Amino acid sequence: MTLLLPLIKLVVRSSVKCHAQNVVRGTAVGLALSYRDSSSWGSKKKHRHVKLNLFINMADPKIEEILAPLRASVKEQVHYGKILQVVLPQGDLIRSLKADGAPEIDIKKAVAELKLRKKILEDKELSLAPSTASFDRAKMEDLLKRRFFFDQSFAIYGGITGQYDFGPMGCALKANLLNSWRSFFILEEQMLEVDCSILTPEPVLKASGHVDRFADLMVKDVKNGECFRLDHLIKNHLEKVAADKKTADDIKEKCRDIVVRLDGMTKDEMSAVLKEFKITSPITGNDLSEPVEFNLMFGTQIGPSGLVKGFLRPETAQGIFVNFKRLLEFNQGKLPFAAAQIGNAFRNEISPRSGLIRVREFTMAEIEHFCDPKNKDHPKFDSVRDVKLQLYSACNQMDGKPAVVMTIGEAVDKGLVANQTLGYFMSRIQLFLIKIGIDPKKLRFRQHMSNEMAHYACDCWDAECLTSYGWVECVGCADRSAFDLTQHSKATGMRLAAEKKLSEPKVVDVVEAAINKAALGKAFRKEAKLVIDVLEKFEEAELCEIEKQLSEKGSYIITTNSTDYELTGDMVSIKRLKKTLHVEEVVPNVVEPSFGIGRIMYALFEHNFRIREGDEQRTFFSLPPVVAPLKCTVLPLSNNPQFQPFIKRLSEGLTQVDVSHRIDDSSGSIGRRYARTDEVAVPFGITVDFDSLKEPHTATLRERDSTGQVRISLDELPSVVRDLANGRLTWQEVEKKYPKFEQQESTTGA
Amino acid sequence: MTLLLPLIKLVVRSSVKCHAQNVVRGTAVGLALSYRDSSSWGSKKKHRHVKLNLFINMADPKIEEILAPLRASVKEQVHYGKILQVVLPQGDLIRSLKADGAPEIDIKKAVAELKLRKKILEDKELSLAPSTASFDRAKMEDLLKRRFFFDQSFAIYGGITGQYDFGPMGCALKANLLNSWRSFFILEEQMLEVDCSILTPEPVLKASGHVDRFADLMVKDVKNGECFRLDHLIKNHLEKVAADKKTADDIKEKCRDIVVRLDGMTKDEMSAVLKEFKITSPITGNDLSEPVEFNLMFGTQIGPSGLVKGFLRPETAQGIFVNFKRLLEFNQGKLPFAAAQIGNAFRNEISPRSGLIRVREFTMAEIEHFCDPKNKDHPKFDSVRDVKLQLYSACNQMDGKPAVVMTIGEAVDKGLVANQTLGYFMSRIQLFLIKIGIDPKKLRFRQHMSNEMAHYACDCWDAECLTSYGWVECVGCADRSAFDLTQHSKATGMRLAAEKKLSEPKVVDVVEAAINKAALGKAFRKEAKLVIDVLEKFEEAELCEIEKQLSEKGSYIITTNSTDYELTGDMVSIKRLKKTLHVEEVVPNVVEPSFGIGRIMYALFEHNFRIREGDEQRTFFSLPPVVAPLKCTVLPLSNNPQFQPFIKRLSEGLTQVDVSHRIDDSSGSIGRRYARTDEVAVPFGITVDFDSLKEPHTATLRERDSTGQVRISLDELPSVVRDLANGRLTWQEVEKKYPKFEQQESTTGA
Repeated sequence: MTLLLPLIKLVVRSSVKCHAQNVVRGTAVGLALSYRDSSSWGSKKKHRHVKLNLFINMADPKIEEILAPLRASVKEQVHYGKILQVVLPQGDLIRSLKADGAPEIDIKKAVAELKLRKKILEDKELSLAPSTASFDRAKMEDLLKRRFFFDQSFAIYGGITGQYDFGPMGCALKANLLNSWRSFFILEEQMLEVDCSILTPEPVLKASGHVDRFADLMVKDVKNGECFRLDHLIKNHLEKVAADKKTADDIKEKCRDIVVRLDGMTKDEMSAVLKEFKITSPITGNDLSEPVEFNLMFGTQIGPSGLVKGFLRPETAQGIFVNFKRLLEFNQGKLPFAAAQIGNAFRNEISPRSGLIRVREFTMAEIEHFCDPKNKDHPKFDSVRDVKLQLYSACNQMDGKPAVVMTIGEAVDKGLVANQTLGYFMSRIQLFLIKIGIDPKKLRFRQHMSNEMAHYACDCWDAECLTSYGWVECVGCADRSAFDLTQHSKATGMRLAAEKKLSEPKVVDVVEAAINKAALGKAFRKEAKLVIDVLEKFEEAELCEIEKQLSEKGSYIITTNSTDYELTGDMVSIKRLKKTLHVEEVVPNVVEPSFGIGRIMYALFEHNFRIREGDEQRTFFSLPPVVAPLKCTVLPLSNNPQFQPFIKRLSEGLTQVDVSHRIDDSSGSIGRRYARTDEVAVPFGITVDFDSLKEPHTATLRERDSTGQVRISLDELPSVVRDLANGRLTWQEVEKKYPKFEQQESTTGA
Repeated sequence: MTLLLPLIKLVVRSSVKCHAQNVVRGTAVGLALSYRDSSSWGSKKKHRHVKLNLFINMADPKIEEILAPLRASVKEQVHYGKILQVVLPQGDLIRSLKADGAPEIDIKKAVAELKLRKKILEDKELSLAPSTASFDRAKMEDLLKRRFFFDQSFAIYGGITGQYDFGPMGCALKANLLNSWRSFFILEEQMLEVDCSILTPEPVLKASGHVDRFADLMVKDVKNGECFRLDHLIKNHLEKVAADKKTADDIKEKCRDIVVRLDGMTKDEMSAVLKEFKITSPITGNDLSEPVEFNLMFGTQIGPSGLVKGFLRPETAQGIFVNFKRLLEFNQGKLPFAAAQIGNAFRNEISPRSGLIRVREFTMAEIEHFCDPKNKDHPKFDSVRDVKLQLYSACNQMDGKPAVVMTIGEAVDKGLVANQTLGYFMSRIQLFLIKIGIDPKKLRFRQHMSNEMAHYACDCWDAECLTSYGWVECVGCADRSAFDLTQHSKATGMRLAAEKKLSEPKVVDVVEAAINKAALGKAFRKEAKLVIDVLEKFEEAELCEIEKQLSEKGSYIITTNSTDYELTGDMVSIKRLKKTLHVEEVVPNVVEPSFGIGRIMYALFEHNFRIREGDEQRTFFSLPPVVAPLKCTVLPLSNNPQFQPFIKRLSEGLTQVDVSHRIDDSSGSIGRRYARTDEVAVPFGITVDFDSLKEPHTATLRERDSTGQVRISLDELPSVVRDLANGRLTWQEVEKKYPKFEQQESTTGA
């Protein structure tokens, strides 16, 4: 799944990473280093965790029986490479290959085979999961489209793939989701929220690595110009060749070999494959162009001169990094602090698919938590220590073991999750996702395997939601070390660092140049400043050399701008002194939770899609009130004008207590109108009927999921609905307190 | 001011309009037509409105005395043109010129002179306004930058003009402003909110007119490539020449003449001016290129093929128009309804200036209210009928009269404001702006003069805020007729219309073709469908012709795709029948309130910037709690650990009642820390001091603007602050109820 549906944000990183790894391609050291962490997770001590199933709803022993051989196949597999022919658990095999300094190609093959087996295992797991079995995606998509939750952009102009417009219900859901996010993360944690520019000048994205590495190789149909992503094209073609019975065995082996090596191939190597297998357009059969690198950023020009190249940002994070100094100052120079941003980012996909999951324009919510690289403890970690997460560690992925449930406290203590700050955010991510309606049984944290992880990241866990597309990465949570700040520091010459107070003052030896500016000015006049600038940048070794030459030769020559300047003892002397330091400079490390809002919304839709029992046509979304587009509908039983004053009074009462609602005075029966409001996930409905006209005035209140109804006085209704919507009151409590109302929906139902 | 600082959105329209007028340039009819509305406003009946001053704070008779001759100068001016040499009030002069069918150049000159005189009048008015006199922009900008409300984007990379990043405080203000907007407009009016794509394919913006007309002419320095907006360049140059004492009188006259005509000049005419006056770069003196049209949209390519040209949307409105059908359906086919969108739009300014007022990337909030073209009454108009607005009508602008205050009811009744829907939104705009902190004395509605108004608009009023840059257009409110839907219908062939129920059924005569598909199929086989399609599109006249030829010649020939098809009487016959219609199709008209969020924020900053009396260094923002970035600060008097539990308890209590707050345990004195929170507009501050340790536990509550303090029990504090922040409680009420607390700030103040 990971290969097909990576979270937009993480793909960026993966893509950057991929090419970064190309740089060290062929050097076993590069790979071995990047594997160090995961092999240490493999140590015995780290394996003493609770064994639970990947899916809680799959703890069925019969299902486990079916999965057992597949799990074994992942774990124990005979390596078909040419170096090792021993039977070893696959994870161990890879570790052993690395330890032995095996050629990279063998490691790659072993990893690819592992992935394939994992995929088979996962597919089987998915097919056995009872809840997904009953899910009807077409039915849900029909509802989403019919009630305009979202739909393709510019459809009347033929539409553009990978772009979606949110209609009233989708938009309200999104706004509620973002408001919940803002209060859950930004307000509760007192984060510094920023709102930065989308148009980004090239040098910023050059420094971040996107200009050079955020690209995919593609080829074009020479006749109609249609574009194909090269690696996907080759893979699909060779898999077809290998599957063909008529293909000779050696060719099959060759195909499989190429597919395995594809990830690390250069443009020229791939081009050679294209030619060797005479690959043409799978659609027209036309010839294909030479491969070209296609950068996935949308480019444009800023200003009219055409000289300032810019891009639409591919992620919101860079806006936070370039504002680091201002934010640190805003936080009065203190670490740790977190900044956050909600905003749109863009990615020019070669061929977007899968609805909201892979799009060209998307909303992200990102947090960058800046902390002391030497202390990644989190002050509030104890508040989440006992939160249980489904953790699918890199190690278990390699060994074909399922995800395990354990507390985040245990995971951090064991070193499975790298540090408290990362663990704290993982727990908070889970609490948030469950709060807004993600099914806890369809949520897991998957650790990046070292070959997926950006080369600068220490540890990375994706919150994945199970959907009919498989496990979809919805939130990434990575420890990005000091990579970004360091890159921008290098590119701008601006120190992006914080001062850390030393626990006790430190006395250090310092070598300094004592400069006699008057003497320098007299000697070099206008150029004196130039010489002073050079002198001030000298480090200890250079200063010692000056001292040496001054004492030996009586002079020292500085060469700058191709001119020599002779310094003598009256101009500069070298002093040695002791200095007491109270602070030291640190480049903060960054822990980054990064939320793909569209993907979370998609998972919410799937996890909350319901079909009313006994009526296949009545579909609805069981979204929690906190994110439901509207909290309440107010319905007059009929268009009898006597109902109007009560409807108005209720509507005003609801507005006063900030409950978003809608009056539905359309002409259908109550049952039919409830069915319509169920479709758009409205959790509560108030109906004014003939009994409402009598004193004391009352109306019925109905709950969407249970379709239970009670009768409440008009005065009380608005605050009851508000408390239900806020989660301060449960429907069970309401049903206990107020008289049950039966009949309406059933007698007048559609 | 209008020329310098048009609202981003309206500039678009202006720009579109400008070029649209170029199309009819030279035809007196075009201009006369577009003037029809404003001349009718000049009728006697329309002038009986209350006379009040433009600035309420300028009702000083002394000031009016100074302004009187300037007002007269606007009203009565000797026309210096060559046709008319009579003394006439300027507005009347223009009307008389039009009525006489005077050459366009004379009308243009008269309009330009009028604008100049209006400008002199306004500048004088501004200079006399006492509140603006004391405003120190540099001081405010220093505060905005220092506390990172907003600042230039990518500053560490040298920055980009016209792009800004909002820091934590600016971002929170913006979020609060948008939430207020959403609840004031969308929730209260049950509008349909949408969230559409930013990347827009070319055909959409071709239909809207932006591809062809959303452009400015510019020239480039041939050596360094620097760009200049051509009209600004010529104007500045010629004004300089005309002001030079050495310039001959006839040249001066010529310069003035050209400046007046500049608005209507073609590219070639402007190019000739450049050559005649040998205009070079005002910065380097280098030669300039030929003028080129520079489209102000940011272009890019969607998808990898390079074949789908797209733009970053220049306004959010088009996303609503292209979704019209879905929205109408969502509203169950009923008119009127309003859709709204909050989102970013982009404009590639040639040389952006004036901070947040003219930028390349900005947030808009737009409403498109779709209504029956024949009935623009608004059901809720009575609820705003008595709201008083400062209205600066086109007529008063032409006559040099000040804005007048009148109720919107009166303005609509008189026909000054075109219809109830427009008037309803104008009132709502004012109520909203005042609610979020715009100074009512610095707010007016200025009507577009007919030469500014987009050619398709019926009436347009801008809500303008007075700032140190002059009157800045912050919200536009226009009746756009059926322009947009008609354009998109034409471009896509999709009927963007609604069905309107007739008050009573209408019987109409209908001529129809009765098609015998079997016979056609037999005769034309595969091509039969083609023939049927053509037949079905025929209108009455064509059908009558068929009838005629069939009866006269026995056959009729349809030519399509260069092929003739002979129809005979057995294939088609013409029927005449009566049909009863219950509905008619209408293309809805659109009333569009369009908010420039950045400009409103800038006006909010200026209107709420304060300097503490007696201390020039203590500046702060007096923002209303509803939009203030944070509602409350919690401060321990010192870092005494005994205060900690109370601070924690307060913070939890505030979180529970959703009050955004921050703990400030920095080391400064209370007075200094209050000064810091005042700077970021925090309206309330709670201090835990030694008295808090005693039972019953209490703390002080301070209000920002008055700096008054009271003492309240810890248990009550959170809800009191919540009610203050919500506006359910006033500070005066709090001061009456709770004991006053004096001393702290004064004794420990900075």
